[in-house]
Amino acid sequence: MTTRIVELRRGILKKNDELAAALRMRFISAGVLVLNLVSSPGAGKTAFLERTLRELQASGAKAAALVGDLETDNDARRLAASGAPVRQINTHGICHLDAEMIAKHLDSWDEVTLACLHYLFIENVGNLVCPSSYDLGERIRVVLLSVTEGEDKPLKYPGLFNSADAAVITKSDLAAPCGFDRELALRNINEIRPGIRVFETSAKTGAGMAEWFAYLAEQTRAS
Amino acid sequence: MTTRIVELRRGILKKNDELAAALRMRFISAGVLVLNLVSSPGAGKTAFLERTLRELQASGAKAAALVGDLETDNDARRLAASGAPVRQINTHGICHLDAEMIAKHLDSWDEVTLACLHYLFIENVGNLVCPSSYDLGERIRVVLLSVTEGEDKPLKYPGLFNSADAAVITKSDLAAPCGFDRELALRNINEIRPGIRVFETSAKTGAGMAEWFAYLAEQTRAS
Repeated sequence: MTTRIVELRRGILKKNDELAAALRMRFISAGVLVLNLVSSPGAGKTAFLERTLRELQASGAKAAALVGDLETDNDARRLAASGAPVRQINTHGICHLDAEMIAKHLDSWDEVTLACLHYLFIENVGNLVCPSSYDLGERIRVVLLSVTEGEDKPLKYPGLFNSADAAVITKSDLAAPCGFDRELALRNINEIRPGIRVFETSAKTGAGMAEWFAYLAEQTRAS
Repeated sequence: MTTRIVELRRGILKKNDELAAALRMRFISAGVLVLNLVSSPGAGKTAFLERTLRELQASGAKAAALVGDLETDNDARRLAASGAPVRQINTHGICHLDAEMIAKHLDSWDEVTLACLHYLFIENVGNLVCPSSYDLGERIRVVLLSVTEGEDKPLKYPGLFNSADAAVITKSDLAAPCGFDRELALRNINEIRPGIRVFETSAKTGAGMAEWFAYLAEQTRAS
């Protein structure tokens, strides 16, 4: 049975990679910077994205979001309050987003809509394992890690951290009550992904957000 | 391809269920109460289990643990400090424990060792989705939810919450700085799994641990 599973898994990932490559071409043609946000459940992806969308909208940048969850449209409703266009993807038991789901939910946004956007954020299902294998056509994969989760997560989930282009430490306002060891967390992130850009942020206080927006602007110019 | 995946998935789960049923018989014969602890990464399973093992050992109860992670033996080393026998299971990329892994790692503990135990705790891989489908032969599935994760996790991950026999709210010492809405969390847990036993705990301060130990003792008598 193992051989059949490996073959089938290869087949699924190959199909996903092909779809992701087509999506990547669409995103590049439209000139939209696409970011895939991955983390544990509860690491604060939605709060971070809420603040990101709100401030981008306020600065005149055009941003949209696709948000994945097994069930509920709670996150889409929270994010839509920013004024940005948001679509909820319910995976109904599937533990990650895949390129097919993205393509399907993009259908309601035509190429003109896409071409108006500077940024498209994809908030993945909360999971530190399975999303690492599924390319969504993004240019930047961002892994989020909250100060409440423990500094050893990069070592325990190396696949996801190793596949990321940037890391965001969230909930930094809770660092003191959690006894967060910042040096250790940074060392562990760098052990798995040497040289990765790290942002230390709080969606609550706004700490670190300026650096994050500078990075977004820089990446837009690079794309 | 979808039909083949569904068939293969059924085959894998059927095989797992058979192995789990055999494990369950072994655990019942040995008179050991087996608990499967599931949660997001960083919800505090290890800290909760550390305190549980330490206090059980101090009270004269015999407990052991199997702990699953993709990589590292950090958790086994932390838990072994309690004096309890602990085995690390590294899944190397697999996002959940399965009955075969449990059976394999039990091999080093013969039936005499098992029969000496009152409790065997299995700490699953941090993941709120995939572990829900894999029976490990446990009698009690415990889902942990930290106050730092957000009150909506039961609604977003109904599969896992619905399959649990008990819920443990962790890190209650951080409830105030996190603005944790206790009533909402309890309501959401009960919406998915009406009548489930809920423990509100802090491994740091020891809050709620007495109720947890009373529950363990009560379940031991019931087994």
